Amino acid sequence: MSEYRGYTGMSLTFLKESNVKVGDSVKVTEDLTYTGILMPRYEHTDDKHIVLKLKSGYNIGIEVNKIKKIELLSSEKIETKSSSKIKIDSSLPKVLLLSTGGTIASKIDYRTGAVTPALSATELNSAVPELAEIANIDAEVIFSEYSENLEPEHWKKIAEKLDSYAKSDYKGIVIGHGTDTMQYTAAFLSFALAGYPIPIVLVGSQRSSDRPSSDAALNLISAFRFVVESNTRGVFVVMHHNESDDLVVGHIGTRVRKNHTSKRSAFQTIGNNPAFLIFDKKIEKNLEKEFFKQKEYVPKLNFDSHVALVKYHPGYNPKIIDFLVESGYKAIIFEGTGLGHVGKTMYEGIKKANESGLFMGMTSQCIDGRVGMNVYESGRDLLELGIVPLSDMISETALVKAMWALGNSGSPVEMKNLMLKNIASEFSD
Amino acid sequence: MSEYRGYTGMSLTFLKESNVKVGDSVKVTEDLTYTGILMPRYEHTDDKHIVLKLKSGYNIGIEVNKIKKIELLSSEKIETKSSSKIKIDSSLPKVLLLSTGGTIASKIDYRTGAVTPALSATELNSAVPELAEIANIDAEVIFSEYSENLEPEHWKKIAEKLDSYAKSDYKGIVIGHGTDTMQYTAAFLSFALAGYPIPIVLVGSQRSSDRPSSDAALNLISAFRFVVESNTRGVFVVMHHNESDDLVVGHIGTRVRKNHTSKRSAFQTIGNNPAFLIFDKKIEKNLEKEFFKQKEYVPKLNFDSHVALVKYHPGYNPKIIDFLVESGYKAIIFEGTGLGHVGKTMYEGIKKANESGLFMGMTSQCIDGRVGMNVYESGRDLLELGIVPLSDMISETALVKAMWALGNSGSPVEMKNLMLKNIASEFSD
Repeated sequence: MSEYRGYTGMSLTFLKESNVKVGDSVKVTEDLTYTGILMPRYEHTDDKHIVLKLKSGYNIGIEVNKIKKIELLSSEKIETKSSSKIKIDSSLPKVLLLSTGGTIASKIDYRTGAVTPALSATELNSAVPELAEIANIDAEVIFSEYSENLEPEHWKKIAEKLDSYAKSDYKGIVIGHGTDTMQYTAAFLSFALAGYPIPIVLVGSQRSSDRPSSDAALNLISAFRFVVESNTRGVFVVMHHNESDDLVVGHIGTRVRKNHTSKRSAFQTIGNNPAFLIFDKKIEKNLEKEFFKQKEYVPKLNFDSHVALVKYHPGYNPKIIDFLVESGYKAIIFEGTGLGHVGKTMYEGIKKANESGLFMGMTSQCIDGRVGMNVYESGRDLLELGIVPLSDMISETALVKAMWALGNSGSPVEMKNLMLKNIASEFSD
Repeated sequence: MSEYRGYTGMSLTFLKESNVKVGDSVKVTEDLTYTGILMPRYEHTDDKHIVLKLKSGYNIGIEVNKIKKIELLSSEKIETKSSSKIKIDSSLPKVLLLSTGGTIASKIDYRTGAVTPALSATELNSAVPELAEIANIDAEVIFSEYSENLEPEHWKKIAEKLDSYAKSDYKGIVIGHGTDTMQYTAAFLSFALAGYPIPIVLVGSQRSSDRPSSDAALNLISAFRFVVESNTRGVFVVMHHNESDDLVVGHIGTRVRKNHTSKRSAFQTIGNNPAFLIFDKKIEKNLEKEFFKQKEYVPKLNFDSHVALVKYHPGYNPKIIDFLVESGYKAIIFEGTGLGHVGKTMYEGIKKANESGLFMGMTSQCIDGRVGMNVYESGRDLLELGIVPLSDMISETALVKAMWALGNSGSPVEMKNLMLKNIASEFSD
């Protein structure tokens, strides 16, 4: 990582002249005085500000022109190793920890935030010493991105990495991931790696680990315990269940949704209770069913992102559908109203999309409940226009599944069959 | 209404030859025998089927070519009056019931479903006799549409109708409305009619009144009681709160969302408890605050539907933003991830949209919680690119508000000011 990552022009010059680098602890005096860590920036940002991470865990931007003084308090040696091992206890199982970025990874060293998103085992050990008592951990960094910046290409990279460990001696794999798009990644891995022999858990944190209310350590410990103790397979999301510290849960990767912007209990299983309850002393399977029926592991790692998610609303302009057809989209997932409806103004566009061979699936913007397109005239009309009802698959999962199904099928018929097959509990029964 | 509404070609000929009309009770024999009411159809549908509404409340399509016999059991005289009055009890307050269509209106006569969506007072009286003990009811039909077919033009028509009664002697106004887009209409009326002197309630039903589990009658009775007893103003949605019959609630029109496709308790206030609890014997104000602060009624009934709702996801194609800009859109409401983020791939498009003068507001696809665009780098980047954070306004309300604000302001600055002003509790504080 560059010592001045993201800084350009005026702010870069200022930092170089002041002999201050990303990751350094500094004291900045303008009208007020701030003490914090110099944070990296992205390339597109302006060159007039530097960004400090304060002790509160929040960042502020300070205009370079207004800075009267900047003092270097201490320099952080940035850890550049991307893979390393903790001490071995041969009685413990082996778990692989992969890092993709996000709050849980970036803050795990309690200090530099996004500066060293690499989770080295040494850092991990000092940050969350409980982990070394659960498993022998190998840690590896795939990339370091806030999850809002992840694209389907990143999903594929993660899947390929996991595929390379399909025949390993790991008891399970834990993936540190930003919470913003965690459910999308979880859905992709659920389909791409159906039948994978060991449990895969995505874990994140809603509050960075330098805040008193952080869920980072507890979520991480619970994720490790889950892959070691649960005796299950498949892709799960492990996150806080409530606002106290007494319960973390494991959600099925295709049925989970981030339903709150900031609460630690933001993640919820839609339409059911979470699959596993991870108590302090034991792990309980909460739903009496087999979540992942596919026994054989046949990786299908491709995708085709020519899929649009269309959330219908009054006043929706049907020309957007025409634009999608003309732009080469191959599938549309509708978030219809109620039981799976869109207004009559959409019919012409939908008819054209159908004639152009696009797959069109219907989910509901209600989020919970099944679509039921046989109940009202509107639903039946849409069935006649070629729209495929997707039962209670949540819309984000349906979007990801369509990208995956397009990338791993040879024909529209095969793609539609994949969409309707219950691969990873994306349909709740 | 046409006696053969929606039937064309082969099916129309068949019905005429069989001497059977929409609304008739018939017995149809093909491989099986069905008894039901002949339903109307929409113009765009094929001409090969007729549709029967069965006693179960559900409809089936039957292929004309396969019908061996069709017998007329009884002919329903279709009620064509669109406005009438029940007996007057001078001790009771006056309430206006407006009908726009939807399950609650279409099925209130327990028989012909969509055939006679007109709620005549006579029909009402026989269907829900309790209403006549709550108020003297004037009933009026504005239009008869399933709410998935409503457009902003319809919102305006409803608002104009309500505006025409702003100086009436009604105690309140109840609007029968389909549940699919009820929250969008409720939001529009909340803004367009801010300061309206009497309470306005939208009411619907999730189960048609010919089903044993119907919520139609209870919701309607509760809506009438609410406008008569609650002593409040503003726009509310009154719907079932749970799966038993003991509680109906009043939701603030800008904070309510349909969160389940089929449950009677589908409607929920986001981020809080509902504003009013409508028990069997009493109505309780549930939140200690003034929901609608605007005292003076100044109708603002216009809209401009050049607003797009963009739900961001990994793989979102930024060219769609370019298309919106080129198509003359004036505002975009983003449903970002988490605290209000979109991926870096979107920045170029957003920059162009900003330069083209589009208003861009940020909400979260998490639904619950506030956006917080100062916490992470991504959020600060988007602020710099001109995106306006919309706190905890729910995305559908933000979309409607943007259409309304565009239609009732003379400049981008005024429009933005309207977006950020808390007009009808769209921001929860």
